[in-house]
Amino acid sequence: MIKPRYIAIAAITLDGKIARNKSHMSDWTSKEDKIFMRALLDKCDAIIVGNNTYKTAIGPLSKRNCIVISRSADSGQRTVNLVYCKPNKTELSKLLKPKSYKLIAILGGAQTYSFCLKNNLLDELYLTVEPVVFGQGISLFADDNHLNKKFKLISEKKLNKRGSLLLHYIKI
Amino acid sequence: MIKPRYIAIAAITLDGKIARNKSHMSDWTSKEDKIFMRALLDKCDAIIVGNNTYKTAIGPLSKRNCIVISRSADSGQRTVNLVYCKPNKTELSKLLKPKSYKLIAILGGAQTYSFCLKNNLLDELYLTVEPVVFGQGISLFADDNHLNKKFKLISEKKLNKRGSLLLHYIKI
Repeated sequence: MIKPRYIAIAAITLDGKIARNKSHMSDWTSKEDKIFMRALLDKCDAIIVGNNTYKTAIGPLSKRNCIVISRSADSGQRTVNLVYCKPNKTELSKLLKPKSYKLIAILGGAQTYSFCLKNNLLDELYLTVEPVVFGQGISLFADDNHLNKKFKLISEKKLNKRGSLLLHYIKI
Repeated sequence: MIKPRYIAIAAITLDGKIARNKSHMSDWTSKEDKIFMRALLDKCDAIIVGNNTYKTAIGPLSKRNCIVISRSADSGQRTVNLVYCKPNKTELSKLLKPKSYKLIAILGGAQTYSFCLKNNLLDELYLTVEPVVFGQGISLFADDNHLNKKFKLISEKKLNKRGSLLLHYIKI
Protein backbone atom coordinates (compact mmCIF):
# COMPACT_ATOMS: atom_id res chain seq x y z
CA MET A 1 0.00 0.00 0.00
CA ILE A 2 1.37 3.39 -1.00
CA LYS A 3 1.05 5.98 1.76
CA PRO A 4 -1.38 8.58 0.48
CA ARG A 5 -0.45 12.24 0.42
CA TYR A 6 -2.59 14.31 2.77
CA ILE A 7 -3.26 17.87 1.74
CA ALA A 8 -5.16 20.28 3.95
CA ILE A 9 -7.15 22.99 2.18
CA ALA A 10 -8.32 26.00 4.16
CA ALA A 11 -9.34 29.62 3.77
CA ILE A 12 -8.59 31.99 6.62
CA THR A 13 -9.11 35.63 7.44
CA LEU A 14 -6.16 37.96 8.10
CA ASP A 15 -6.62 37.07 11.76
CA GLY A 16 -6.52 33.31 11.18
CA LYS A 17 -10.22 32.48 11.43
CA ILE A 18 -11.89 29.81 9.29
CA ALA A 19 -15.45 30.73 10.30
CA ARG A 20 -17.41 33.03 12.60
CA ASN A 21 -18.93 30.06 14.46
CA LYS A 22 -19.58 26.30 14.17
CA SER A 23 -22.44 26.53 11.72
CA HIS A 24 -20.95 29.34 9.62
CA MET A 25 -20.55 28.06 6.06
CA SER A 26 -17.59 28.89 3.88
CA ASP A 27 -19.77 31.35 1.92
CA TRP A 28 -17.54 34.27 2.96
CA THR A 29 -14.57 33.23 0.80
CA SER A 30 -13.79 34.68 -2.62
CA LYS A 31 -15.19 33.25 -5.84
CA GLU A 32 -11.61 32.64 -6.98
CA ASP A 33 -10.84 30.55 -3.90
CA LYS A 34 -13.94 28.43 -4.47
CA ILE A 35 -12.88 27.79 -8.08
CA PHE A 36 -9.37 26.82 -6.96
CA MET A 37 -10.72 24.51 -4.24
CA ARG A 38 -13.10 22.68 -6.53
CA ALA A 39 -10.35 22.07 -9.10
CA LEU A 40 -8.02 20.74 -6.40
CA LEU A 41 -10.73 18.49 -4.95
CA ASP A 42 -11.27 17.03 -8.44
CA LYS A 43 -7.68 15.75 -8.29
CA CYS A 44 -8.15 14.13 -4.87
CA ASP A 45 -9.30 10.55 -4.39
CA ALA A 46 -11.07 11.19 -1.10
CA ILE A 47 -11.85 13.87 1.45
CA ILE A 48 -11.44 13.85 5.22
CA VAL A 49 -13.90 16.20 6.84
CA GLY A 50 -15.36 16.78 10.31
CA ASN A 51 -19.04 16.13 10.92
CA ASN A 52 -19.96 19.80 11.44
CA THR A 53 -18.14 20.92 8.31
CA TYR A 54 -19.70 18.06 6.36
CA LYS A 55 -23.16 19.20 7.41
CA THR A 56 -22.53 22.78 6.20
CA ALA A 57 -21.54 21.52 2.73
CA ILE A 58 -23.48 18.28 2.35
CA GLY A 59 -24.64 19.12 -1.21
CA PRO A 60 -21.27 19.56 -2.95
CA LEU A 61 -19.55 16.93 -0.77
CA SER A 62 -22.09 14.15 -1.27
CA LYS A 63 -20.76 13.53 -4.80
CA ARG A 64 -17.24 12.84 -3.54
CA ASN A 65 -15.61 10.03 -1.50
CA CYS A 66 -15.83 11.33 2.05
CA ILE A 67 -14.46 10.10 5.33
CA VAL A 68 -16.40 11.95 8.00
CA ILE A 69 -14.62 12.26 11.34
CA SER A 70 -17.13 12.03 14.14
CA ARG A 71 -16.84 11.20 17.83
CA SER A 72 -20.42 9.97 18.00
CA ALA A 73 -20.67 7.73 14.89
CA ASP A 74 -19.33 4.16 14.70
CA SER A 75 -16.18 3.79 12.62
CA GLY A 76 -17.02 2.04 9.37
CA GLN A 77 -20.68 3.12 9.33
CA ARG A 78 -21.50 3.84 5.69
CA THR A 79 -23.83 5.47 3.23
CA VAL A 80 -23.12 5.89 -0.49
CA ASN A 81 -19.62 7.50 -1.00
CA LEU A 82 -19.36 8.21 2.70
CA VAL A 83 -17.81 6.41 5.64
CA TYR A 84 -17.71 7.59 9.24
CA CYS A 85 -14.61 7.33 11.39
CA LYS A 86 -13.84 8.17 15.01
CA PRO A 87 -10.95 10.65 15.51
CA ASN A 88 -8.51 7.78 15.96
CA LYS A 89 -5.51 7.13 13.72
CA THR A 90 -5.69 3.31 13.97
CA GLU A 91 -9.34 3.25 12.95
CA LEU A 92 -8.70 5.66 10.11
CA SER A 93 -5.80 3.51 8.85
CA LYS A 94 -8.04 0.41 8.95
CA LEU A 95 -10.61 2.18 6.79
CA LEU A 96 -8.02 3.45 4.32
CA LYS A 97 -5.98 0.24 4.03
CA PRO A 98 -8.14 -1.53 1.40
CA LYS A 99 -8.30 1.64 -0.70
CA SER A 100 -5.55 2.78 -3.01
CA TYR A 101 -5.98 6.49 -2.45
CA LYS A 102 -3.01 8.55 -3.57
CA LEU A 103 -4.24 12.02 -2.66
CA ILE A 104 -6.51 12.82 0.25
CA ALA A 105 -7.88 16.30 0.95
CA ILE A 106 -8.49 17.52 4.49
CA LEU A 107 -11.29 20.07 4.51
CA GLY A 108 -11.59 20.93 8.18
CA GLY A 109 -12.93 22.18 10.50
CA ALA A 110 -10.46 23.12 13.19
CA GLN A 111 -10.78 19.83 15.12
CA THR A 112 -10.14 17.79 11.97
CA TYR A 113 -7.18 19.91 10.83
CA SER A 114 -5.72 19.48 14.34
CA PHE A 115 -6.38 15.73 14.44
CA CYS A 116 -4.55 15.29 11.13
CA LEU A 117 -1.67 17.62 12.04
CA LYS A 118 -1.05 15.92 15.38
CA ASN A 119 -1.16 12.43 13.81
CA ASN A 120 1.23 13.17 10.93
CA LEU A 121 -1.61 13.04 8.44
CA LEU A 122 -0.95 16.50 7.04
CA ASP A 123 1.80 16.73 4.41
CA GLU A 124 0.80 19.93 2.62
CA LEU A 125 -1.33 22.96 3.32
CA TYR A 126 -3.10 25.13 0.76
CA LEU A 127 -4.03 28.26 2.65
CA THR A 128 -6.05 31.06 1.09
CA VAL A 129 -5.70 34.27 3.09
CA GLU A 130 -8.76 36.43 2.47
CA PRO A 131 -8.26 40.19 3.13
CA VAL A 132 -10.89 40.50 5.86
CA VAL A 133 -10.89 40.50 9.68
CA PHE A 134 -13.52 38.65 11.78
CA GLY A 135 -12.15 39.41 15.26
CA GLN A 136 -14.11 36.67 16.98
CA GLY A 137 -14.33 33.24 15.34
CA ILE A 138 -12.93 29.74 14.99
CA SER A 139 -9.16 29.49 14.53
CA LEU A 140 -7.59 27.26 11.89
CA PHE A 141 -6.48 24.71 14.47
CA ALA A 142 -8.43 23.79 17.59
CA ASP A 143 -6.96 25.32 20.72
CA ASP A 144 -6.40 22.22 22.80
CA ASN A 145 -2.62 22.03 22.77
CA HIS A 146 0.51 24.07 22.35
CA LEU A 147 1.97 22.96 19.04
CA ASN A 148 5.20 23.91 17.32
CA LYS A 149 4.80 22.55 13.81
CA LYS A 150 7.03 23.90 11.07
CA PHE A 151 6.20 24.45 7.43
CA LYS A 152 7.92 25.74 4.32
CA LEU A 153 6.31 28.02 1.76
CA ILE A 154 6.43 26.51 -1.72
CA SER A 155 4.47 29.04 -3.72
CA GLU A 156 2.20 32.04 -3.43
CA LYS A 157 -0.39 33.33 -5.88
CA LYS A 158 -2.62 36.39 -5.84
CA LEU A 159 -6.10 35.18 -6.82
CA ASN A 160 -7.84 38.50 -7.47
CA LYS A 161 -7.48 42.29 -7.39
CA ARG A 162 -8.33 42.70 -3.71
CA GLY A 163 -5.55 40.27 -2.93
CA SER A 164 -6.97 36.94 -1.81
CA LEU A 165 -3.68 35.11 -1.52
CA LEU A 166 -3.19 31.39 -2.09
CA LEU A 167 -0.23 30.02 -0.14
CA HIS A 168 1.10 26.50 -0.61
CA TYR A 169 3.13 25.06 2.27
CA ILE A 170 4.71 21.69 2.93
CA LYS A 171 5.17 20.28 6.42
CA ILE A 172 8.87 20.01 7.32
CA MET B 1 -3.13 69.39 12.39
CA ILE B 2 -2.48 66.73 9.74
CA LYS B 3 -4.14 63.40 10.57
CA PRO B 4 -1.33 60.94 11.13
CA ARG B 5 -1.19 57.67 9.22
CA TYR B 6 -1.59 54.67 11.53
CA ILE B 7 0.23 51.52 10.49
CA ALA B 8 -0.13 48.28 12.39
CA ILE B 9 2.87 45.94 12.33
CA ALA B 10 2.39 42.32 13.34
CA ALA B 11 3.88 38.88 12.88
CA ILE B 12 1.52 35.93 12.96
CA THR B 13 1.75 32.16 12.69
CA LEU B 14 -0.03 30.27 9.90
CA ASP B 15 -2.92 29.92 12.33
CA GLY B 16 -3.13 33.64 13.10
CA LYS B 17 -1.43 33.74 16.51
CA ILE B 18 0.80 36.61 17.62
CA ALA B 19 2.08 34.84 20.75
CA ARG B 20 1.65 31.67 22.79
CA ASN B 21 0.50 33.64 25.84
CA LYS B 22 0.45 37.15 27.39
CA SER B 23 4.09 37.18 28.45
CA HIS B 24 5.43 35.44 25.34
CA MET B 25 7.91 37.78 23.67
CA SER B 26 8.23 38.14 19.93
CA ASP B 27 11.43 36.07 19.99
CA TRP B 28 9.82 33.40 17.79
CA THR B 29 9.77 35.52 14.61
CA SER B 30 12.39 35.31 11.88
CA LYS B 31 15.54 37.40 11.88
CA GLU B 32 14.41 38.92 8.57
CA ASP B 33 11.13 40.08 10.09
CA LYS B 34 12.94 41.74 12.98
CA ILE B 35 15.21 43.60 10.54
CA PHE B 36 12.21 44.74 8.52
CA MET B 37 10.34 45.85 11.64
CA ARG B 38 13.21 47.89 13.03
CA ALA B 39 13.70 49.67 9.69
CA LEU B 40 9.99 50.50 9.52
CA LEU B 41 9.94 51.73 13.14
CA ASP B 42 12.83 54.05 12.30
CA LYS B 43 10.52 55.82 9.83
CA CYS B 44 7.72 56.20 12.37
CA ASP B 45 7.36 59.25 14.62
CA ALA B 46 5.75 57.34 17.49
CA ILE B 47 4.54 53.93 18.57
CA ILE B 48 1.23 52.90 20.10
CA VAL B 49 1.64 49.77 22.18
CA GLY B 50 -0.29 47.93 24.90
CA ASN B 51 1.13 47.76 28.40
CA ASN B 52 1.82 44.00 28.31
CA THR B 53 3.58 44.19 24.96
CA TYR B 54 5.55 47.22 26.13
CA LYS B 55 6.80 45.25 29.13
CA THR B 56 8.02 42.36 26.93
CA ALA B 57 10.11 44.76 24.81
CA ILE B 58 10.95 47.59 27.18
CA GLY B 59 14.63 47.69 26.13
CA PRO B 60 14.28 48.37 22.39
CA LEU B 61 11.10 50.46 22.87
CA SER B 62 12.46 52.79 25.54
CA LYS B 63 14.50 54.67 22.91
CA ARG B 64 11.42 55.53 20.85
CA ASN B 65 8.39 57.82 21.37
CA CYS B 66 5.83 55.47 22.88
CA ILE B 67 2.18 55.88 23.74
CA VAL B 68 1.38 52.99 26.06
CA ILE B 69 -2.28 52.00 26.16
CA SER B 70 -3.24 50.93 29.65
CA ARG B 71 -6.56 50.65 31.48
CA SER B 72 -4.93 51.17 34.87
CA ALA B 73 -2.63 54.16 34.22
CA ASP B 74 -3.78 57.78 34.11
CA SER B 75 -3.88 59.30 30.64
CA GLY B 76 -1.06 61.79 30.25
CA GLN B 77 1.19 60.20 32.91
CA ARG B 78 4.72 60.48 31.57
CA THR B 79 8.29 59.31 31.79
CA VAL B 80 10.99 60.18 29.23
CA ASN B 81 9.77 59.39 25.65
CA LEU B 82 6.72 57.64 27.05
CA VAL B 83 3.16 58.70 27.74
CA TYR B 84 0.35 56.51 29.09
CA CYS B 85 -3.15 56.63 27.68
CA LYS B 86 -6.40 54.86 28.57
CA PRO B 87 -7.99 52.86 25.70
CA ASN B 88 -10.19 55.81 24.78
CA LYS B 89 -10.11 57.60 21.44
CA THR B 90 -10.84 61.07 22.87
CA GLU B 91 -8.01 60.84 25.38
CA LEU B 92 -5.64 59.56 22.73
CA SER B 93 -6.58 62.43 20.39
CA LYS B 94 -5.94 64.94 23.21
CA LEU B 95 -2.45 63.50 23.71
CA LEU B 96 -1.66 63.49 19.99
CA LYS B 97 -3.07 66.95 19.17
CA PRO B 98 -0.02 69.04 20.19
CA LYS B 99 2.30 66.66 18.31
CA SER B 100 2.87 66.75 14.59
CA TYR B 101 3.27 63.03 14.09
CA LYS B 102 2.89 61.92 10.49
CA LEU B 103 3.39 58.18 10.89
CA ILE B 104 2.40 56.18 13.95
CA ALA B 105 3.17 52.47 14.33
CA ILE B 106 0.81 50.16 16.21
CA LEU B 107 2.75 47.28 17.74
CA GLY B 108 0.02 45.34 19.52
CA GLY B 109 -0.87 43.23 21.33
CA ALA B 110 -4.29 41.94 20.39
CA GLN B 111 -6.23 44.39 22.59
CA THR B 112 -4.35 47.36 21.15
CA TYR B 113 -4.70 46.22 17.52
CA SER B 114 -8.45 45.80 18.18
CA PHE B 115 -8.79 49.17 19.90
CA CYS B 116 -7.17 50.89 16.92
CA LEU B 117 -9.11 48.91 14.30
CA LYS B 118 -12.47 49.62 15.94
CA ASN B 119 -11.70 53.33 16.33
CA ASN B 120 -10.53 53.90 12.74
CA LEU B 121 -6.95 54.32 13.89
CA LEU B 122 -5.58 51.60 11.61
CA ASP B 123 -4.94 52.63 8.02
CA GLU B 124 -2.40 50.02 6.99
CA LEU B 125 -1.29 46.60 8.16
CA TYR B 126 2.14 45.06 7.68
CA LEU B 127 1.63 41.39 8.43
CA THR B 128 4.49 38.89 8.46
CA VAL B 129 3.19 35.32 8.18
CA GLU B 130 5.75 32.97 9.72
CA PRO B 131 5.56 29.33 8.51
CA VAL B 132 4.83 27.78 11.88
CA VAL B 133 1.71 26.62 13.76
CA PHE B 134 1.13 27.28 17.49
CA GLY B 135 -2.35 25.75 17.87
CA GLN B 136 -3.12 27.48 21.14
CA GLY B 137 -2.24 31.16 21.54
CA ILE B 138 -3.30 34.78 21.29
CA SER B 139 -5.05 35.78 18.07
CA LEU B 140 -4.12 38.94 16.16
CA PHE B 141 -7.27 40.74 17.28
CA ALA B 142 -8.90 40.34 20.70
CA ASP B 143 -12.03 38.21 20.55
CA ASP B 144 -14.56 40.58 22.07
CA ASN B 145 -16.63 41.40 19.01
CA HIS B 146 -17.66 40.10 15.63
CA LEU B 147 -15.95 42.40 13.15
CA ASN B 148 -16.17 42.55 9.38
CA LYS B 149 -13.31 44.83 8.40
CA LYS B 150 -12.08 44.76 4.84
CA PHE B 151 -8.54 45.19 3.55
CA LYS B 152 -6.73 45.22 0.23
CA LEU B 153 -3.38 43.58 -0.38
CA ILE B 154 -0.85 46.08 -1.75
CA SER B 155 2.29 43.98 -1.90
CA GLU B 156 3.80 40.68 -0.81
CA LYS B 157 7.45 39.79 -0.27
CA LYS B 158 9.16 36.55 0.65
CA LEU B 159 11.68 37.41 3.38
CA ASN B 160 13.73 34.20 3.48
CA LYS B 161 14.07 30.68 2.08
CA ARG B 162 11.61 29.04 4.45
CA GLY B 163 9.02 31.52 3.30
CA SER B 164 8.35 34.08 6.00
CA LEU B 165 5.99 36.27 4.02
CA LEU B 166 5.58 40.01 4.46
CA LEU B 167 2.12 41.19 3.41
CA HIS B 168 1.18 44.86 3.16
CA TYR B 169 -2.53 45.68 3.36
CA ILE B 170 -4.51 48.90 3.39
CA LYS B 171 -7.84 49.23 5.16
CA ILE B 172 -10.66 49.85 2.67
